[in-house]
Order: sequence, then structure tokens, then C-alpha cells
Amino acid sequence: MIKFDAHYLKESVQDRDIERIVPALYKAHEDLHGRKGKGAEFTGWLDLPSRISDSFIKELGQLAAEVQDQSDYLVSIGIGGSYLGIRASLEFLGGISKLPVYYAGHNMSSDQLHHLLQTIQDKRVTVVVISKSGTTTEPALAFRVVKKMLEAKYGAEELKKRIICVTDEKKGALRAIAQKNGFRTFTIPDDVGGRFSVLTPVGLVPLALAGVDIFSVMEGARKAQSEYAAPDLDNNACYRYAALRNILYGKGKKIEVLSSFYPNLFYVAEWWKQLFGESEGKGHKGIFPASLILSTDLHSMGQWMQDGERTVFETFIAVERPQQDAAIPADPQDLDGFNYVAGKGLDFINKKAYEATAAAHFEGGVPNMTITVCKADAVHLGHLYYFFEKACGISGYVLGVNPFDQPGVEAYKKKMFALLKRG
Amino acid sequence: MIKFDAHYLKESVQDRDIERIVPALYKAHEDLHGRKGKGAEFTGWLDLPSRISDSFIKELGQLAAEVQDQSDYLVSIGIGGSYLGIRASLEFLGGISKLPVYYAGHNMSSDQLHHLLQTIQDKRVTVVVISKSGTTTEPALAFRVVKKMLEAKYGAEELKKRIICVTDEKKGALRAIAQKNGFRTFTIPDDVGGRFSVLTPVGLVPLALAGVDIFSVMEGARKAQSEYAAPDLDNNACYRYAALRNILYGKGKKIEVLSSFYPNLFYVAEWWKQLFGESEGKGHKGIFPASLILSTDLHSMGQWMQDGERTVFETFIAVERPQQDAAIPADPQDLDGFNYVAGKGLDFINKKAYEATAAAHFEGGVPNMTITVCKADAVHLGHLYYFFEKACGISGYVLGVNPFDQPGVEAYKKKMFALLKRG
Repeated sequence: MIKFDAHYLKESVQDRDIERIVPALYKAHEDLHGRKGKGAEFTGWLDLPSRISDSFIKELGQLAAEVQDQSDYLVSIGIGGSYLGIRASLEFLGGISKLPVYYAGHNMSSDQLHHLLQTIQDKRVTVVVISKSGTTTEPALAFRVVKKMLEAKYGAEELKKRIICVTDEKKGALRAIAQKNGFRTFTIPDDVGGRFSVLTPVGLVPLALAGVDIFSVMEGARKAQSEYAAPDLDNNACYRYAALRNILYGKGKKIEVLSSFYPNLFYVAEWWKQLFGESEGKGHKGIFPASLILSTDLHSMGQWMQDGERTVFETFIAVERPQQDAAIPADPQDLDGFNYVAGKGLDFINKKAYEATAAAHFEGGVPNMTITVCKADAVHLGHLYYFFEKACGISGYVLGVNPFDQPGVEAYKKKMFALLKRG
Repeated sequence: MIKFDAHYLKESVQDRDIERIVPALYKAHEDLHGRKGKGAEFTGWLDLPSRISDSFIKELGQLAAEVQDQSDYLVSIGIGGSYLGIRASLEFLGGISKLPVYYAGHNMSSDQLHHLLQTIQDKRVTVVVISKSGTTTEPALAFRVVKKMLEAKYGAEELKKRIICVTDEKKGALRAIAQKNGFRTFTIPDDVGGRFSVLTPVGLVPLALAGVDIFSVMEGARKAQSEYAAPDLDNNACYRYAALRNILYGKGKKIEVLSSFYPNLFYVAEWWKQLFGESEGKGHKGIFPASLILSTDLHSMGQWMQDGERTVFETFIAVERPQQDAAIPADPQDLDGFNYVAGKGLDFINKKAYEATAAAHFEGGVPNMTITVCKADAVHLGHLYYFFEKACGISGYVLGVNPFDQPGVEAYKKKMFALLKRG
């Protein structure tokens, strides 16, 4: 379902580099599947696709129909892993959802929250709030504000149909709020961390409510679970990606740029940054994950990519078929000289730009790989998520870190709470 | 108009580092103002704010009134410097424009172009197309498609009022198209490159048409031109920023992250990336410019920033007063435990998060600086643009590159045209 092309790594990665990394890769595989590596208690994502039940998907489909019927908008409240995967999915799928989604609780911008309240004021709204603890500052505060507005609008009884909580099974403030107020709940599993949670109810509930076919998402993920199960570097593209990026990092390629010529992948790249940045950026090591949307950013970051510090490698995500094409019209004047591409689709030009860029960056000293999905649909999305999640687990173990913790994110929070309590 | 705070550089930058860089900084100043450094023929941006005439602004105001009167939407066609500054300005100002703006020609996404055509089909539209040559692929192709649609809709005569070209004074395809078809034109000066062009007609024409007060933008820039004129490190924050980032780069800080807690600054950061990335990323050197929108990205890139490779420094842009605030309501249940901040504005919490982050990142080994603007309005925007432009010119000279060329951007284009001509 995914094609993986690494021929623009030639010269950068030699056969002996691969041979040298194989033992670490096998060890990573053993540790991950044997649940005996660092952070093993958070590896539930590994067989999630095969564990999810059809009855859960069916139940969610019924709820989705009710929610779509009663709403003009869905407001999705969450941050980090409870935000990026949802938004990445909806934008990847190109706005095919049945219910428009607004996001809240993913920052503390008073301007944005103010704007949201104005937008939903006179509309029929359902809210899904996603938080394991219920006390993460951004979503907790946004939920307070939105809940108060909806209470005044709908009253306590109607609110039970309009607030859906995705949270811890037993503990935490959001579980308590749901119980106290009679809100419907879904459970976040204990053995899956935030950045690996897009295929749990964290991602699946909001997506289903918005109208995404989550059965297909999980089908794609199931195929990936089976396809990337064996530690066979020749046939397992996911492991090859994990190995290659570690080899490149070891050779001083400190920045990985995820590039795509499809703007719909902007938030997939944001999701990917959290996945890899939070998993590997610790103990003063870890590749710096960055992203570009091309050709837009060739006209801003293109110069640096072509000729800046040679400390970077690039991973392209290509999409074979766009949702829509747009034909270039012939122009009798032809003053811009582009009549020679008249009749071609814009996507044809876009693909040539990608081919040219991969070649030019390689020649300029930026080794690069390409992951191609044939279509931006739900099946391929699920497959892509699992591909990156497994690559990340393996890659982190090869690097020698615990890819499933995030001790550094507490530092600013502690200081912030101290400042807030001082008033 | 701007406050500059570098106290979280202590330990990273010593007095002797400053002393050591002063001669290079003075030389950069002499070369820039004496128009005798590399790329001096593209330093027209330096005194642009004091050169712009009130009559030009007035003329533009009249045209803007006509365009706003005849249109539901403005379509702005351009890429790179003919896109980022316009979008950065409109988003920074928080959607206060009189005429909604859609963008085209900034990528080759057939999905996006298709969606745009559907959106504008039944609306009253004016188009501004910005291209020095008229043959840059992305805007040229988008202009072809949009022009054809509008020709069919309005006819040739009405089209003269609905297409406005910002282009070269004499040469180029867009100038020829405008002459042949009777489109209104504005001139891009020869001595200002794309990434320095936001305060020329490139940025000013679309902004004025959308309803932005460009007199105030230029007033802010004029103040900056005067404030940052003298090579005095104690009082010239712009030069201090240029010096400090070079010192940090010399000490192995290879990545600069521009961070803001205000999502309205997302495209200002994109504009900044082009400015610095394209100016300095050459000859296998140059800081890698990246950006974060916080607190969103603290929940994705926060772990890496706190504890990843210590090859990074951070520049915050803070905004003292948001457009709108949103009060945190008290909650009788207080199950999330946030009643202690009830009654505070959300922006107060956001500011504490910034203070905590700057301190935590400093302690984690990320030296950081903060540029504060008191308000996200047109005056401060113009000031900020000039601040960064001048800092970039000085910084590039100190680095020893020509900050005004971009030879590397041709590499992929040559390959792309070869592929396209092969068919």
C-alpha cells in the first residue's frame, strides 16, 4: 500500500552501514515485540489495529449519525496527541467529513477562543473533549469556557447529548466531570501514550463523529500491522526507514525534513513531528524534525535546502492520485510561454516538480527518501499512521532512548503553575 | 516600539564575544549603508519607508474603495515574497480586512485550485497577481486558469477593472499581458528582492485592496528606519539581534526557532523563514530557521526543545495586548481544580506559559531572546518587518555571504523544465 524509494541515499548510505545496524535493529524488534524494552508498558499501540472490535465501530457509527443529525458543527477540544492526529486525518482526507469541525483547547489564544465562541453562538453544536487527565491546562480551560456557554444555551439535560468525553477509564477530572454531569464517555487505553493514540478512541471518536469511515482507517492499519511485522530489512519498508534515518543521523544529518507537494499533508507532518520529536528528542540527542509544504516552501526554504549547511536529510511523502485535477488551459496570446503544457493537469506539473526537487536536493548534498501512497483516502491514512508509529518505536530503540516517555515536557509546566499560583 | 530582551543568553554569550564581533558588525553597517557590499544592487529596501509617497498611498486608497465595492472576494496570486508577506500581514492583523482574501499560485495543488474555483464561481471577484517576471510557474499557471474563468464570466472589457498586476516596470510576461489586455499595473522596484519586498507594491497593493491601513504600516517602518539607523549595539536592538544570532551560530547553535504564543504570527514566522533562510543558507552555511506556535507545539516539539540536541537557540515574539480576551469562568464543581484562575483572562495564563517556557528552555540549555511588540496592529507590523529585514542584511554580511541573492533556487527549476519539455 506504500512504496518506499531510497535510491537518493546512494553515496550517503553504504551496504556496510546497513550491515552494521542490523543487530541493533533486530534487538529493537525483539524488545518491542517481546515488550521488554524501555517503556514497554506504553506499547499497546503495536497490536491495536487487530484488537479493535467491529462492535465498537458500529456503536460509534450510530452515535455519529445522531450527532450529525443534531449539529451544525463539531467542536473538538484537545491538544498534542488529542489534537494533531484528528486534524491531520481530516485535512489529509480533504474535507470530505459530514460535519465541519472546529478545534479548541490546542492553545491559549484568547483571540481564537473569542472567535470560536462568536462562530458557534447561534449554531447547533456538539462537543467532543479528549483528555486523559482532564487537567491539562489548555483543553481544561477551553472546556470550561465552552461548557459554560452551552449550559446557558441548552440546559443540563440537553447537554448530556451534546458533550462527549474521551478520557481515562476510572481516574481523572474529566472522568469525574462526565460522571457528575451524565456525559457520554469513551475510554483511552492505559498502554498507549498520546502521540501513539490516533488509532484509539482519542482519534477514532472525533473522526467518526465528523463522518470519517474509521473502519477503513483501521483496515489500512491492520494491513500495516501485518506487513511490517517481520524484521526483514529487504521487505519491511518501515524498518528500512527506521534504520536509514539512524544511519544518516550517525553521519551528522541532524535535521530530518518531511516534505510533501500536497498541502493536505500539512498536519500529517505536524503529527509526525510530535511522534518523532517527542519520542527521540531526549538525553541531548535526537533528530530535529521539521517539515516543508512544496512547492510553496521551495520559494522560501528552497535556497537553504539546496545550498545551506549539509546537516539535513529529507523524507518526501508523495500522493499518486489527487482528489481533483485542474487542466492547464491553452492561451491564444501565450505571453507566459506555457502553452507547451496546455492540456496537462496541474498535478502532472506538480509531480515533475517533485521529481526535479528530489534529484536537485540529492545533487546538492541532501540525501532523500520517498514514501508514496497511491491515494489520500482513509485506508492509506491508517496504513501511514501505523507505518510511522512502528518506525518510530524501532528507531527510538535503535537510538538507545525510551521512545515512550516525555520527561522534558514537565519543565515549563512546573514553572507555569508556580507563576500562576503566585497570581 | 519593540522591546528586545536577551537576558536568557547569559552564560551563552559573553562580553568578549560581543567585543569580538563589533568590527564585523561595523563593517556590515558601512557596506550596507554605503551600498558597497555584496548584492548592493538589491538594497533598495533600506530606505524604502522614507521614499514612499503619500500620493501613492492615496491613489491606492481610491482603487481599494472601488475594488471593495465591486467584490465579494479578492484573489491574491503569487508565491514566495509575493505571497508570504501578504498573508503574514493579514493574519497578524487578525482578519480585520474589509475584503476576504483567497490565495492562489502559491503551490501546484490541483485540489486547492479546484476548491478555489468552486468557491469563487458565483461570487464577485477581483484578482491581484504579483510576479516580477510573469513566468514563475505556480502563479503563471494559476493566473491562466483563473483568468480564463473570469474572461468567460465577465468578458474582456469588465476584466480590465477586475485584474490588477504588480510586476516589472517594463520587462516580462506579466507586463506584456497587462499591456495587451488593458489591466491596471503597479511596479515592483528593481532594487528590492522578493523576500525584502513586503513594503513595496508587492505587499502594499494587495493589503490596501483588502482594506489594511498601509499608511500605518509604512509609518511603523519609517520609525524603524530611523530607530535602527546607527551602528550602536547598546541602543540598536536590530543590530544586537543580528550580532547575537551570529555569535550563537559560531558556538554551534545551528538551528534558530522562532516561537510565538500567538497563532496569528504563524505566517510572520513563515515570512521570517524565507527572509533568513534564503539570505543566509548558501555556501554550505547558514542557520536553519524553524518555527513553533505555542503552547500548541509545546505538546509536540516541547520534549525535543527541552532535552534534545543542544544545537538550537530560540527567539520568541511576544505580543503585549491581544485583540480580544476571554475570561476563565468559575465552576461550582471545580473538578479540574482551575478555580484559582477563575476571573483571569486566558491571555494572562498564556503569558505565564511564555515566561515559564523561556525560563525552562534556558535552564534546559536553549539560549533565548524575546522581541515584544505591544500590539498586533499595522504600525507594529511595519516596524517588525523593517526590524527583521535590516537585521537580516546585517547578519548576512557578518556571516560573510551575499544576503541578497538566491542562486540555489534555480537547481530544481532547471530540472523541472527539462522534465516538462520532455513531456
